[in-house]
Amino acid sequence: MLGSTHGTLTTDSRRARVIACGERRPGPAVHGRVDDLDVGGRPLHADVPDLSRFFRPQSVAVIGASDAAGRPNTGMTRQLLDWAEHVGARVHPVHPARPAVFGIPCAPSVAALPEQVDLAVLLIADPLPVIGELAEAKVKFAVAFASGFAETGEAGAAAQRRLADAARRSGLRLLGPNTNLNAFEHFRDDLTGPAIALITQSGHQGRPVFALQDLGIRLTHWAPTGNEADLESADFISWFAEQPEVGAIAAYLEGLKDGRAFLLAADRAARRGVPVVAVKVGRTETGARTAASHTGKLTGADDVVDAAMRQYGVIRVDALDELQDTAALLARARPPLAEGVAVYSISGGTGAHVADLATAAGLTLPALCAAKQAELHQWIPEYLGVANPVDNGGHPVGDARGRKIIDALLADPSIGTLICPVTGPFPPLSDRLVRDLVDAAEETDKLVCVVWGSPVGTEPAYRDVLLGSSRVATFRTVGNCLRAVRAWFDHHRFTASYRSPFDEAPRTPSPPSARRPP
Amino acid sequence: MLGSTHGTLTTDSRRARVIACGERRPGPAVHGRVDDLDVGGRPLHADVPDLSRFFRPQSVAVIGASDAAGRPNTGMTRQLLDWAEHVGARVHPVHPARPAVFGIPCAPSVAALPEQVDLAVLLIADPLPVIGELAEAKVKFAVAFASGFAETGEAGAAAQRRLADAARRSGLRLLGPNTNLNAFEHFRDDLTGPAIALITQSGHQGRPVFALQDLGIRLTHWAPTGNEADLESADFISWFAEQPEVGAIAAYLEGLKDGRAFLLAADRAARRGVPVVAVKVGRTETGARTAASHTGKLTGADDVVDAAMRQYGVIRVDALDELQDTAALLARARPPLAEGVAVYSISGGTGAHVADLATAAGLTLPALCAAKQAELHQWIPEYLGVANPVDNGGHPVGDARGRKIIDALLADPSIGTLICPVTGPFPPLSDRLVRDLVDAAEETDKLVCVVWGSPVGTEPAYRDVLLGSSRVATFRTVGNCLRAVRAWFDHHRFTASYRSPFDEAPRTPSPPSARRPP
Repeated sequence: MLGSTHGTLTTDSRRARVIACGERRPGPAVHGRVDDLDVGGRPLHADVPDLSRFFRPQSVAVIGASDAAGRPNTGMTRQLLDWAEHVGARVHPVHPARPAVFGIPCAPSVAALPEQVDLAVLLIADPLPVIGELAEAKVKFAVAFASGFAETGEAGAAAQRRLADAARRSGLRLLGPNTNLNAFEHFRDDLTGPAIALITQSGHQGRPVFALQDLGIRLTHWAPTGNEADLESADFISWFAEQPEVGAIAAYLEGLKDGRAFLLAADRAARRGVPVVAVKVGRTETGARTAASHTGKLTGADDVVDAAMRQYGVIRVDALDELQDTAALLARARPPLAEGVAVYSISGGTGAHVADLATAAGLTLPALCAAKQAELHQWIPEYLGVANPVDNGGHPVGDARGRKIIDALLADPSIGTLICPVTGPFPPLSDRLVRDLVDAAEETDKLVCVVWGSPVGTEPAYRDVLLGSSRVATFRTVGNCLRAVRAWFDHHRFTASYRSPFDEAPRTPSPPSARRPP
Repeated sequence: MLGSTHGTLTTDSRRARVIACGERRPGPAVHGRVDDLDVGGRPLHADVPDLSRFFRPQSVAVIGASDAAGRPNTGMTRQLLDWAEHVGARVHPVHPARPAVFGIPCAPSVAALPEQVDLAVLLIADPLPVIGELAEAKVKFAVAFASGFAETGEAGAAAQRRLADAARRSGLRLLGPNTNLNAFEHFRDDLTGPAIALITQSGHQGRPVFALQDLGIRLTHWAPTGNEADLESADFISWFAEQPEVGAIAAYLEGLKDGRAFLLAADRAARRGVPVVAVKVGRTETGARTAASHTGKLTGADDVVDAAMRQYGVIRVDALDELQDTAALLARARPPLAEGVAVYSISGGTGAHVADLATAAGLTLPALCAAKQAELHQWIPEYLGVANPVDNGGHPVGDARGRKIIDALLADPSIGTLICPVTGPFPPLSDRLVRDLVDAAEETDKLVCVVWGSPVGTEPAYRDVLLGSSRVATFRTVGNCLRAVRAWFDHHRFTASYRSPFDEAPRTPSPPSARRPP
């Protein structure tokens, strides 16, 4: 049933409708413990795979390594070597013929590897034959780059099933096929605080989130899951939700391999209060058709997916810029201290406009009390409106009054969030304004948001001051700011009252006497 | 009646509802010819004021000019002098006591001005007493900076009515009060092609649109209308619609002073095919209340405003970034040559996602015909989907195939628009891709849109190549691109079939026999 507390979800649109009508289906395979089942035989628990050594392997075998000029494998081998040097991992090229690659001795086969490795990177067209060898060598993880599987049609899907079966039998956990090296890129390690962990079923779609690091936003992991023959998005959601450095999980999803596994993973994140923000393709038939030919995924009946995401608190957004802005805010902002939002600007027009949009977005703008308004009027001319939105008329932000106004707003117990839209930079005022906002944000647990509305974006007040702060949440559009703040409120409201439906799911059939007559 | 072909619109929400129910009201005052009235006594025509000398005065009097350090009037006087020097206008400071300001001799009074001036800038607290003097001196236009009028309550509203009455009696046209010098800023004169003309009821809210010039988008006029005691947004819409260099009108509106005048102006723009893109505050009670205390405007019943805007083809957007992107596209793009949109990218994921969002946004993505797909597969590997969206897999954009693919797509008669989202810059591919897109756009009348999705925005491919082109429409978010393209289609569809309701409005009552019994 849609929105049922038993969390039924399947990604097959036809099957979804059948289940929505109450028909029983065998439980999908969820990795890990499968002894805790509901009355319908569906798992109520999924183990969390330990992915530590996947993301931070101490030793890596590269099957199909190359240093021949112009070959794609050469670029990938070089990237892996760079990365391994950066993180201090040992790399062992494997090639039946080459004695060495980039000066590093090659093992002729997996069996001949000089040590047990954590991760094997498979740069070969057909990864299937090597899975057994890897398992024998006790390799924990493999990444398969090859394409030509479920995304190409039925024959490819059958090949993918064979690959998945081989992985399952072997005990090795496989990422891919049809994936890449995004997990092994250079992540900035000079950024601190809660981070975003990223999951993408398409590497390119993760690029803008990865690039957030250039804006000072910390990212610690990227799982490009590709076709998900074995490891799937749900595995990464579960594991990321348990990593202390992860403040939010951002995901680009084309389809859900196993709806039940996704719900169990979302449930785990919800229990731990870790927000999951996701783009999910498949609002339209066009999107569904194209996603199927890209990573072979069924996007699923969109209304079913949408309802299931809502039920488990997954924040669904439409576009990548919304994914970036919402995930960044949810990763970094502390819990709301009050529901009220204050809109503060140097222009009455900006205040009126943003207050209008904020209210339309479902945010609460309480009118400030008379005492607070009188306090603000110490620094703001009497004829300007300070009930909320607060219009300072401009000049006060150019001197010591500016910081006092910000502090007075943040001290108001009805206000948990201050939103300051800066429509146009006017350095004599806006430079001091953003500096005061950054400084004030350092000293409060309340949320301070700035919308830098100039389309230019090369101004030092934006590049250096705002992006230099990990406490101010900086946006480029009012829309994304309001959506993110609304999602932040919703997330905390959701998790505060979250009760997992899996705890309450019936494990045994009701006694016959309690059943309704058929 | 809502959406009536007689275009009834009032900005007073209570009155709007009364009119919506059919009650007759006296016609609002529309400037100009009032001898053409409909059967209800409402004007069917409004003259277009000649604002040439307002925007390009040959001589300007500055009443209250100052060069005393630290006075706000000094800054404004200096700005006007700079501007006048730039455009070649003569400036005459007027001050009862000072012999000269910034070395320019002062006239002691308006009557003592050395020549008849086109424009008087009133930097004085009470502009009312000087209006008569200005009229006697045959000054054509005045700009009143003073605040403290309708935005402050009933007494201020009464003062504003007196000012408006004085202006009306004098024949002089007045901008303001509660406005500024935005009309007299430095506009880039090195940009060519169709421009945006901007109207704002709040100066700050126009800043981001003005800043579009830094991104290479031409802006020719900015009317900061303030409280609109006399000249109102409708006057500027009408006049801008008749200027050959204006490709689109962008407006930030808090309220409509005179609904009928607005509709007549929108009608004029619709007849001439000039798009009007507007942010209109007042979706919520909060916005309405705040706008009233900002420029003293009644935002009006939002559903009435919304319906009226739709009826006359005014494109309403929510936020300033949408205003910028939509106005820029509509100003510059040629009419659509076909309804079909092709989504083209170097990643199947990006293609699937953007195709999904584009379809959801109401755009048409036709499947390319077999012959076109075969043509594309000359350059794109067979296993990649090219039906639309077109996924090239990356490598082809790095060599001569890239341009051939773009040209082949633009040559397809079913395709009128090419949208290429670039999620992340990868210079070996994306630099050549955007260069090819820019070059191809120069040689086609079809629309080429690029979404530069990197949040960084300092990349040369974006800053230099894309922003250096006036033919490629560059966006930073997929959402804004799709909204703008949709608005562009809607605009051309609307104007192609537009018949002015004012031409058909009954001018005399129907004969009694034709009336229905009461």
